[in-house]
Amino acid sequence: MRIFTFDTTLRDGTQGENVSYSVDDKLAIAMKLDELGIDYIEGGWPGSNPKDKEFFARAKGLKLHHARLTAFGSTRLAKNPVEKDASVNALVEAETPAVAIFGKSWDLHVHRALGISEDENLKLISDTVGYLKKHGREVIYDAEHFFDGYKSKPEYALQTLEAAANAGADALVLCDTNGGTLPGQLAEIVSVVRARFDKIIGIHCHNDSDVAVANTLAAVECGATHVQGCMNGYGERCGNANLSSVIANLELKLGHTTIGPEKLAHLTQVCRFIAELANLPLANNQAYVGKSAFAHKGGVHVSAILKDSTTYEHIEPKKTGNRQRVLLSDLSGRGNILYKLEERGLADRLSPEARRELLDRVKDLEYEGYDLEAAEGTFELLVREALHPGAHFFDVVNYEVTTRSSAAAQGRSTTTASVILRLQDGSTLSASALGDGPVNSLDICLRQCLGQRYPELSEVRLTDYKVRVLDAKPGTAAKVRVLVEWSDFKRSWATVGVSENIIEASWRALCDALRLELMRLHDSTAELDAALKDYSWGV
Amino acid sequence: MRIFTFDTTLRDGTQGENVSYSVDDKLAIAMKLDELGIDYIEGGWPGSNPKDKEFFARAKGLKLHHARLTAFGSTRLAKNPVEKDASVNALVEAETPAVAIFGKSWDLHVHRALGISEDENLKLISDTVGYLKKHGREVIYDAEHFFDGYKSKPEYALQTLEAAANAGADALVLCDTNGGTLPGQLAEIVSVVRARFDKIIGIHCHNDSDVAVANTLAAVECGATHVQGCMNGYGERCGNANLSSVIANLELKLGHTTIGPEKLAHLTQVCRFIAELANLPLANNQAYVGKSAFAHKGGVHVSAILKDSTTYEHIEPKKTGNRQRVLLSDLSGRGNILYKLEERGLADRLSPEARRELLDRVKDLEYEGYDLEAAEGTFELLVREALHPGAHFFDVVNYEVTTRSSAAAQGRSTTTASVILRLQDGSTLSASALGDGPVNSLDICLRQCLGQRYPELSEVRLTDYKVRVLDAKPGTAAKVRVLVEWSDFKRSWATVGVSENIIEASWRALCDALRLELMRLHDSTAELDAALKDYSWGV
Repeated sequence: MRIFTFDTTLRDGTQGENVSYSVDDKLAIAMKLDELGIDYIEGGWPGSNPKDKEFFARAKGLKLHHARLTAFGSTRLAKNPVEKDASVNALVEAETPAVAIFGKSWDLHVHRALGISEDENLKLISDTVGYLKKHGREVIYDAEHFFDGYKSKPEYALQTLEAAANAGADALVLCDTNGGTLPGQLAEIVSVVRARFDKIIGIHCHNDSDVAVANTLAAVECGATHVQGCMNGYGERCGNANLSSVIANLELKLGHTTIGPEKLAHLTQVCRFIAELANLPLANNQAYVGKSAFAHKGGVHVSAILKDSTTYEHIEPKKTGNRQRVLLSDLSGRGNILYKLEERGLADRLSPEARRELLDRVKDLEYEGYDLEAAEGTFELLVREALHPGAHFFDVVNYEVTTRSSAAAQGRSTTTASVILRLQDGSTLSASALGDGPVNSLDICLRQCLGQRYPELSEVRLTDYKVRVLDAKPGTAAKVRVLVEWSDFKRSWATVGVSENIIEASWRALCDALRLELMRLHDSTAELDAALKDYSWGV
Repeated sequence: MRIFTFDTTLRDGTQGENVSYSVDDKLAIAMKLDELGIDYIEGGWPGSNPKDKEFFARAKGLKLHHARLTAFGSTRLAKNPVEKDASVNALVEAETPAVAIFGKSWDLHVHRALGISEDENLKLISDTVGYLKKHGREVIYDAEHFFDGYKSKPEYALQTLEAAANAGADALVLCDTNGGTLPGQLAEIVSVVRARFDKIIGIHCHNDSDVAVANTLAAVECGATHVQGCMNGYGERCGNANLSSVIANLELKLGHTTIGPEKLAHLTQVCRFIAELANLPLANNQAYVGKSAFAHKGGVHVSAILKDSTTYEHIEPKKTGNRQRVLLSDLSGRGNILYKLEERGLADRLSPEARRELLDRVKDLEYEGYDLEAAEGTFELLVREALHPGAHFFDVVNYEVTTRSSAAAQGRSTTTASVILRLQDGSTLSASALGDGPVNSLDICLRQCLGQRYPELSEVRLTDYKVRVLDAKPGTAAKVRVLVEWSDFKRSWATVGVSENIIEASWRALCDALRLELMRLHDSTAELDAALKDYSWGV
């Protein structure tokens, strides 16, 4: 059966604590979800805040290939006629092909939250749905608290759906807004609705009882064909149903069609991308896509999967773009590296000693806290350095960076930096600069020095900067890992630096990024570029 | 119905990536689980590693009031008679009242992993169960991969249970070891087993399909009366069924009895304790016990819960020892802020102008990119400043911080800082320091300055440091938000600073944290402390 996927990472997802996206982030995620084959992307609530309004204004320029962008809002306010309701009109002005509006199904909410009569609430629903249909929109009606409403007053809850259906709603979505319903009861209620309405029935679950994915699947088994959720299970309180788990289960376990098997193989990558932009680590143990989802630690398990991996893996990891890992010891890292080199035909280009040296360097760096899985730019640099021993381009003679602020300058802070480099021909280059902060100042200096000799570096720009404390124990003296993302307008890559000093860690990542670009510019055989392509990702 | 709880945090839980406990940790957790009223505590696998062997040796001295300590192992090896099997004898020597042993139910495993005949496997099972019964143990038989085995060869899978039952096993536990089974199919299979055996039927699920909790509940609805899982959902790969969620659902939603309502009110505290010892953060969005489980961010939700908290809460948070929180963010209206003030009787202590000013300050800071939701320490400071206009303690005359590195010093970087402050009485304090990086150096200076006058600040220490780029566009010149977490051994709080300069942003967070502590020390009426208590959380 074809099941429609509706992602609300950009709306309900951002109601999760600590989840916050800039408008740029939201646009990038919408593109990514479209590539993944999601059917509906709920972008935000244009009537509720300026950021979402800006998102929809800028989203008009997005070229989505498959997904229907969806604006979210509520039924009109009781005091406004629908044509005069600012929030409803903001939905129309968002100019999205689809809109999702929520209305009240629970008598408690009609009385306590809205303070109006039950009949008046039905009127809010039908007016709003009708108005949006008149404007040519596909209307997805979210019946908020439907299950609580049904438990409290079943006939009234069904009447609210009827009001939406009669006004022309294209889909009726049953929401377990509080996340308090368990699968058994939920299935019974979905079946009642399924039998009564000849519309697409949707399901929207929250994870407050830790069963949101199971609830979503139970609804599909009872006839729902539209599933809502958030990637990585983000969302208000305990989160929404994790849409990535829902999709994988529907495709791989229940024989339904959502995004199809080809796109499913990108699921892991998309989930990690979305976590990266939120600056939240993806939970290691997340089903299907987490780093540990196919990682084996117990000795019994490991020896069995070496004989036959189906003994302890419920699916082939590559079906969702994940991979098997064996947590044997710190030597398993070596195995992974060799695997990566061999896969690309690079292992043979390195002499046995060069290979051993490379492996040792990787091991040392990982021991220090470098995470080369996230910083494939740094890994590519190590491989290129191993292929061209001695090609180093520049050494650092010194750098210095000072930030000062004084009451005399109205507390405004300034940062100055100076850098001296020595090139491999022995000449020195120096620069000093005033920047917006220490990393910016050092970046300017480094670029000014190298730009004198290599003007082609001017294309490289820093696109993101992240800091993670590796060991929280000793407070401000803790070791930090700085991850910097770069682009040269053709590709993107990340480099990493680790130190107890955030400036030193940042400096290492800066130097590695520019050194890598120099390596690429001076060693760009098509063959090598192709072999190393997967260490960066397209912009 | 009385449902027995079986916790395997100390055994299967430690097979999760990054989960590791010392023997002391394990003993402390066992005590905690006993207090919580858990029926069985699986402590480890005495035959597999020396740490678990030591645990059981030392556990003989533990005074458990309710729980039965359980040792875990497997059926005997095919080559050994049971009396000579070292691993089985290690179970006996552990001297626990109960033992859990796993055996094979899946023909694939019998052939591929053990390499023996199906009949021989039945003999391993009955020999081992019989031997342990002869030694007076309560025997819990874990049928590994039962569901995969049943799907592959139902009659054989049932024969393995029969072998255990006939040899005297007290409970037959059906394990979804790969975590690949969905609730519908699982329920059917449990029903078949329930109808066939007159024993306690147990369930052991893994979360690889993100439905482990729902699977466990489905099994109970089909007659299982023994539930296995790990606190916080720890465990191999994607983890085991989260036992805390299972218990809460059984007690609060399905009317069963496990640990009882009184002990349930300690669930949050126990889950946090177990996470603390694992040195893993408890997921904010964990059902029932997470920090965000009853946290409201969307303006609509907040205005509704102000009227009636059942509108957006599926249970009363205190039933599992959790509490309601209202978050501040750009999604929140003035309602959220007012809620925080009113809840604590603070709104009336502020004049209307002071209240308006406070709201405006919060709004301005959020517009600049401050995230007061995560930084409740900064919010508390704003409230205290509003209550005591003019109480500021110190101004910054200047600060300066320099990081330098040179080839001459083998590329080792050093950072020095100096700070001058003026106190409200006009006196100035200064300090300079060499630190591990700019934030550490400034922290040392600030503390040295203020410590001369306020030695009580020495208790405050920085516990975590996070950086996030707010707008990725202008590269290293982007605005950054620095979030710093603190503790004074009594409570924890976070402060936030935003600037284009990472040093300046960090500096603001440092100053606010210490200024807040000064405010608290000099304005500690019990009434006010109680009112502001919830802005920090217990250590």
